Amino acid sequence: MTLNGTMKALVKPYGKRGLKMVNVPTPQRIGPGDVLIKVLAASVCGTDLHIYESDASIRERVADNQIIGHEFCGEVIGVGSQVTKLAKGDIVSSESHVICGTCAYCQDGLPHLCQEVALLGIDRPGGLAEYVVIPEQNAILKSPHVSVEVAAMMDAYGNAVDTALCVPLIGKSVLVTGCGPQGLMAIAIAMAAGAKQVIATEMYENRIETANKILESYVRPNQTNRRDMILDISKNPDGVVNKIYEATDGLGVDVLLEMSGADRAIKDGLDVLRNAGQAVILGLSSSKKVEIPWTDLIFKGVTIYFRYGRHLYRTWSEGRNLLEFGLVDLEPLIHKPYFALDNFEEAFQLQIDGKVAKVIFKPDL
Amino acid sequence: MTLNGTMKALVKPYGKRGLKMVNVPTPQRIGPGDVLIKVLAASVCGTDLHIYESDASIRERVADNQIIGHEFCGEVIGVGSQVTKLAKGDIVSSESHVICGTCAYCQDGLPHLCQEVALLGIDRPGGLAEYVVIPEQNAILKSPHVSVEVAAMMDAYGNAVDTALCVPLIGKSVLVTGCGPQGLMAIAIAMAAGAKQVIATEMYENRIETANKILESYVRPNQTNRRDMILDISKNPDGVVNKIYEATDGLGVDVLLEMSGADRAIKDGLDVLRNAGQAVILGLSSSKKVEIPWTDLIFKGVTIYFRYGRHLYRTWSEGRNLLEFGLVDLEPLIHKPYFALDNFEEAFQLQIDGKVAKVIFKPDL
Amino acid sequence: MTLNGTMKALVKPYGKRGLKMVNVPTPQRIGPGDVLIKVLAASVCGTDLHIYESDASIRERVADNQIIGHEFCGEVIGVGSQVTKLAKGDIVSSESHVICGTCAYCQDGLPHLCQEVALLGIDRPGGLAEYVVIPEQNAILKSPHVSVEVAAMMDAYGNAVDTALCVPLIGKSVLVTGCGPQGLMAIAIAMAAGAKQVIATEMYENRIETANKILESYVRPNQTNRRDMILDISKNPDGVVNKIYEATDGLGVDVLLEMSGADRAIKDGLDVLRNAGQAVILGLSSSKKVEIPWTDLIFKGVTIYFRYGRHLYRTWSEGRNLLEFGLVDLEPLIHKPYFALDNFEEAFQLQIDGKVAKVIFKPDL
Amino acid sequence: MTLNGTMKALVKPYGKRGLKMVNVPTPQRIGPGDVLIKVLAASVCGTDLHIYESDASIRERVADNQIIGHEFCGEVIGVGSQVTKLAKGDIVSSESHVICGTCAYCQDGLPHLCQEVALLGIDRPGGLAEYVVIPEQNAILKSPHVSVEVAAMMDAYGNAVDTALCVPLIGKSVLVTGCGPQGLMAIAIAMAAGAKQVIATEMYENRIETANKILESYVRPNQTNRRDMILDISKNPDGVVNKIYEATDGLGVDVLLEMSGADRAIKDGLDVLRNAGQAVILGLSSSKKVEIPWTDLIFKGVTIYFRYGRHLYRTWSEGRNLLEFGLVDLEPLIHKPYFALDNFEEAFQLQIDGKVAKVIFKPDL
Repeated sequence: MTLNGTMKALVKPYGKRGLKMVNVPTPQRIGPGDVLIKVLAASVCGTDLHIYESDASIRERVADNQIIGHEFCGEVIGVGSQVTKLAKGDIVSSESHVICGTCAYCQDGLPHLCQEVALLGIDRPGGLAEYVVIPEQNAILKSPHVSVEVAAMMDAYGNAVDTALCVPLIGKSVLVTGCGPQGLMAIAIAMAAGAKQVIATEMYENRIETANKILESYVRPNQTNRRDMILDISKNPDGVVNKIYEATDGLGVDVLLEMSGADRAIKDGLDVLRNAGQAVILGLSSSKKVEIPWTDLIFKGVTIYFRYGRHLYRTWSEGRNLLEFGLVDLEPLIHKPYFALDNFEEAFQLQIDGKVAKVIFKPDL
Repeated sequence: MTLNGTMKALVKPYGKRGLKMVNVPTPQRIGPGDVLIKVLAASVCGTDLHIYESDASIRERVADNQIIGHEFCGEVIGVGSQVTKLAKGDIVSSESHVICGTCAYCQDGLPHLCQEVALLGIDRPGGLAEYVVIPEQNAILKSPHVSVEVAAMMDAYGNAVDTALCVPLIGKSVLVTGCGPQGLMAIAIAMAAGAKQVIATEMYENRIETANKILESYVRPNQTNRRDMILDISKNPDGVVNKIYEATDGLGVDVLLEMSGADRAIKDGLDVLRNAGQAVILGLSSSKKVEIPWTDLIFKGVTIYFRYGRHLYRTWSEGRNLLEFGLVDLEPLIHKPYFALDNFEEAFQLQIDGKVAKVIFKPDL
Repeated sequence: MTLNGTMKALVKPYGKRGLKMVNVPTPQRIGPGDVLIKVLAASVCGTDLHIYESDASIRERVADNQIIGHEFCGEVIGVGSQVTKLAKGDIVSSESHVICGTCAYCQDGLPHLCQEVALLGIDRPGGLAEYVVIPEQNAILKSPHVSVEVAAMMDAYGNAVDTALCVPLIGKSVLVTGCGPQGLMAIAIAMAAGAKQVIATEMYENRIETANKILESYVRPNQTNRRDMILDISKNPDGVVNKIYEATDGLGVDVLLEMSGADRAIKDGLDVLRNAGQAVILGLSSSKKVEIPWTDLIFKGVTIYFRYGRHLYRTWSEGRNLLEFGLVDLEPLIHKPYFALDNFEEAFQLQIDGKVAKVIFKPDL
Repeated sequence: MTLNGTMKALVKPYGKRGLKMVNVPTPQRIGPGDVLIKVLAASVCGTDLHIYESDASIRERVADNQIIGHEFCGEVIGVGSQVTKLAKGDIVSSESHVICGTCAYCQDGLPHLCQEVALLGIDRPGGLAEYVVIPEQNAILKSPHVSVEVAAMMDAYGNAVDTALCVPLIGKSVLVTGCGPQGLMAIAIAMAAGAKQVIATEMYENRIETANKILESYVRPNQTNRRDMILDISKNPDGVVNKIYEATDGLGVDVLLEMSGADRAIKDGLDVLRNAGQAVILGLSSSKKVEIPWTDLIFKGVTIYFRYGRHLYRTWSEGRNLLEFGLVDLEPLIHKPYFALDNFEEAFQLQIDGKVAKVIFKPDL
C-alpha cells in the first residue's frame, strides 16, 4: 500500500541552522517487512536540538533535506507482505535503531551496538512528518495504559530506563546530574526503584519545579526521614559538591546517573562519588575529551558504565512494566498545549531554552 | 566488669517440650572483646519455636538448660578491655552468628557460612534473659530512627533483606510464599524495591490482614493499575496456582521468595515461576528432602538461590538504610501488649498459632 | 530453487521403537527466508537416542514419519528471495531452535526460551537426510578452523558452552557428572577456562579414556600439582562421594556441572558441593521429579542454575572462539569410521551403549 | 616477646631522594594481636620506587625515617597474647593494608577501601628490615608449593589477581598495557583464565623477553592458531593502535588491563577497546587528571573498572589457588642473584631502569 499526494515534514537543510517545513511526497515504498505509520504525536530529542543548532557533533551526518525526528507514536495504516504481528489500526511507538541483525554485535545479543545501524531521522526519514515508514520490528505496540503523547517519548524513555536500571538502586543514594527530559525520567525511575535518597542538579527553574513534583509524588504519608533534594546550580555552582557531601553525611553518593553531558556535572559527579561508587553515563559531551581524576577513581575503586541507547528489546519491556503498573508516570514532563508542525520554531526554542521538558507535535493540528 | 546476683532467663530443658523460667547467676565473665548487655527487648524467631516444640531438626543441638533467644536489643553496661567502638550506654542489636574469622569461608568474605560458627541462644547463652554477653562485633549500634522493639528483630530482618535483595525486583512480579514475620518483611522490601506486583500466600487471618496493610501502605494515590494480592490458602488451596497464572496473564511470576518451608508452597512456587524465573529460598523445610520438577526447571531455565543467614555485615547496612529512610516500616509486625519473661507460654503459643507476627519480651516488665 | 526426485532420510514411525530408512521427496519449498542445505555430516544427540528408544519423554511429540536429526553441517545449495547473508557454496552448521522472534522471551533477549519455538528434527524435518531446509538465521557459517564433522556437532557443543561458562571457573574445583558428548565437551571447556581441578564421573570405559586424554592435553610440562581425575562409577559407586571429599581436602567442590540427568549423579553432585557452591544443570532427568536435600542446600547457601539450550546467538560466538583459537578441540569425541545413513542401526546402538562419544553420518557415503 | 639490640633497616629521609641504610632498635612492642616476623625475603613495589624517587604523589605521606617496604615473607618468631591461628615457626606473607574493621567500608565487606587504613612501609614500619611487627590478620601462611621469594611478592600479586579476574577472560582478547611486575603477572593470569588472545605493550627489552616466555609457557603442542603478541612500544609507538586492530580483525580487544599508569597506554588502550568492551584500571597515573574520549566511550558502551588493592582476603585465596595448582608461575619474574639490604641502591636502580621485573632482598645475606 502507498499513499498518493504530499505531506508536511520537517527537514534539515544541509549546512544551515534550524529546520525547514516542506511539502514532500508521501512515502512511496513500503518494503515487505515495513509498516506505514500515520504520525499521531511526536516529541523532540536532545539529538534533534543538536541537529536544529547544526552542532559539529551531528551536522555532517544528516543528509540534505532529511526528514528528522525519531520519537513518535502513530497508527499503522499499511503493512508490507512479510509483516506478521502488526495490522492496520494498531497504535505503535518507534524504536530509532534500525539494525542489521547479522553483525558481530547483533549476533551477540547487543544489537544496540550494531555496526551497521541506521537511525530514524538521521540516516533515514524520521517522524516529524505526517507519515513515516519503519520496519515492523521498530514499531512497538502502545500499551493501553499510556497516552499517545507518552508513547511518543518511548525511545527517549528507553535511554533513561537503561541508564537508571544499569545498577541496583534499592537503598542507595543517587545523584542525577541534569533534569532535562531523561534526567527527569531517571529521577522517577530511581524513586520507583527504592533509592533511599535522590539528589539532582539543574539550572532551569521550570525543570527544577517538575523534578520536585516528581520527587514528592513518591513520598509516602509517614516517610518523614527522606532527604531528597534538587540543587539549583544557577545559584552558587561552587557550593554543589559541599552540599552533596553534607546531605550524605560526608560519605558521598552511592550512584551517579550523568544525564547532562556537561563538563562541570561530570567533574562534580565523580568528585562526590563515594568509595566503590558506580557512575552510569548517558549524557553526550560536547567536548570530545573529558578530564577525569584518574588516580582518585582508582583509590575510590569506582566503576563507570558508559551507556548507549537501550537493550533491544529488553529495555522496552522493562520500561513498559514501570508505566503500566503506575511505578513511573511521564505525564508531568509533557508541555501543553501541543504544537502543529508549522509552529516548530517556537516549540524547538522552548525546549532549547530549558523552559519545558518535552514539547509534543501533533501533525494533524 | 561483672554483676553480682542472679537474673531471670528462659532455658531449654533437654529432651522436654517447652521452656523453663529460671533464676541463674548473672554473666560472670566478659572476655576482652565482649560486651555485657542489659536486654531491653527481645523477640522470638522461628528457630526458637522449633526449640520450644523440641523439633527433631534442632532438639539435639541445644545443650541442657541453655538460655535461648538470639533476637534482642539492649544497653551496653560493661565492655571488655579490647573493646574499641562501643561504650557503656550504647543501645545495640544482636547478630546471632559468632564467627571464627579464620576459616576458609571467613577469609573469603563469606563469614555467614563460617565452618566454626557459634549461634547465640543455641551454642552459647542467648538473650531471652535479663543480661547477656556477646562479642563486640555482634553488637550493632541501634539507629536513632528505629524503636528498641524493631531493633530487637534485626537478626530476623537481616534474613529477609538478604533474601529479598538477592535478585533485582524493580519492575518484577514477585510471589512471597508465607506471611510469617520474614514473609511480611519480604513483602515490604519487595514493594520498596519497586516490584510491579507482589502476590503472597498465607493461611492465618491475622497475618493476611497485616500483609494487606503493608501492601496498601505502598500504593500511591494515582497508582490504580497495581494488581497485588494476598491469597488465603486455607480456602481452596488447589486454586492457588490458577489464580497466580491468571493474575500474571498466564505467564507466571518473575521471582519467588520462599519464606515458609512448606512442601506445598515450594511445589506451587516453582510451578508458577515463568521461564528464566528466579527463586530465592529461605524457609527451612521440615522434610530433609524435597521433590522438585527437575526437567521442567531445565526447560524453564530457572535459577534457585538458597540463602542462609545474611552477609555479615553488609546486609546490616542494607537493612538499616531501608529503615532509616522510611522505605520499610517494621512496626506493623509487632504485637502489643509486650510480655514479661514470666508469661512466655502465652507469648510463644500466640506466635506458634500464627495469631501474631512478632511477640516482644521486655525483661524489666 | 527446488530439487527434483527423492532423497534418503531417517524417519520416526509413530509408536514404534527405532527408526526407518526411507526415500522421500526432496524438499519442495524454500521460504523467502530459508536456505536449502545438502547435508555433509550429521551427528546424533541424546534427544535422538530418546526418539530412537521411543522414550515417554519425547515419543508423543514427534509426528509420524518425521525426519529426525538436528546436528548437522552442510553446503548451502539454494537460498530464498529474502536471504541476505548466505550464498550458494557456503558451508554452515545448524542451530536447532527455530524461534518466533516476537513473543515476550524473544523480545527480552531470551529467544532460547521462545514460547513458540519449533525444533528441527522434532517439530519440522531434520537433518538426518540428504537435504534439509532451514531458516537462514539457523544456518551458521562454518569456521575455516573446524572440520565439517566438528561443525556438525555445534548445536550440542552450544549446550556444553552455555552450561560450562554459566559461572566463572578460573581457579575453581569443578565436578562434571557424566562423560557423554556434552560432559566431555564440558571437561575441555572447564580446563580451558582455568579450573584448578576437574573431577568427572562416568561408567563407560571408552568415555573414561577419552576424558582422561582431554584432561592430559591441558597439563603443561611443569604443572605437577594438578589433582584432576575421572572416577569410574561402575566400580564402587558408593565410594564416589568420599573420593571427591578426599580429593578436595574435605571441602567439596566449588562447581557442579551436571551433564548426565542421572538421579545418582544429581544426589552425589549436590552432596559434594561446598558452601556457596554453584550447580549448573543441563542433563534432562528421566524422572519428572527429583528429590534434593533442601535444608542442606540452604545451610550451604548453594545456587542452582538450570540451563536450557544456549543463548542465541551469543553462545555460538563464545563456542567458536574457543575452537578457532585452539582452546578446545572436539576431534577426540568423533568416532571413526563414519557411517552411511543406511547403517543407522549400528551407529545408534554404538552411541546408546556408551561405546563412543559421537558417531558421524555422511549421507553421501 | 621482644628482641634486644638493633637491626638493619632501609628508611626514608624526609625530603631527600633515595633511601638510607641504618641501624635501628629492633621492634620493642608486640601488641596482643600482633606477630613479630624475621624477614626472610622482601621485594620492591612500584610505590617503593616512587618513595625512593621522592615523587610528589607520595613524598609527603611518608614520615621521616620510616622503615619502608610492604612486600615480604618471613618467619613468625613472636606472637601477642591474643594471637590464635599463628605460632612461632610459621612462614608467612604480608598483606599491606592494616584495616580498622569498623568503618562503613569494613562493615560492608570492602575493607580494602577502609577509611582508616594504615599501610605497612608508609604509615607504619615496613619490611625492608631484619624484623617487623604486623597484626596477625595481615600475616598469611605461606603455601608449601611456593618459594619464600614468591611468597614475598604476594601483596603485589594480589593486585594483579584482583585486576585480571575482575571480568571473565575465557575466550576473550585481552590487552595488557605495561609489562612491569604486575603486568607480567596479569599476562600469566589471563592466559591461565583462557583468554583467546593476549596482547601486551612494553618498552624494556628484558621485560618483553620475560613476557614472551610467559606467553609461550601456556601454548599447548597443537595450539597453532593463537595470535598472542608483545608489542615493543619503544619502536614506532604510533603504530601500536593499528597493529592491535590488525591483530583483532579490525574489531579491537574485548578487555583492557591497564597496568602502567602511562597516559599513552591509557589513551591507546581505550582507543582499541571494542563496543561493549571492559577496561580494568590498576596503574596509578602520575598525572592527577587524565583525558578520556567521553563520547566515544558512550557510543561504544564501554565499562571501566577502577581497582584498588585487592579484596581482603578473598583475593588471597584466589591467587593462592592459581599458584598451588600450577596455573600461574611467578618464578620467571624473580631476578637473581638476590640482594643484601646493603646493596639497596643497585637493586632499586635495576628495577627503576626496567632491567628486571622483581629484585629480592635477603636481610640475612
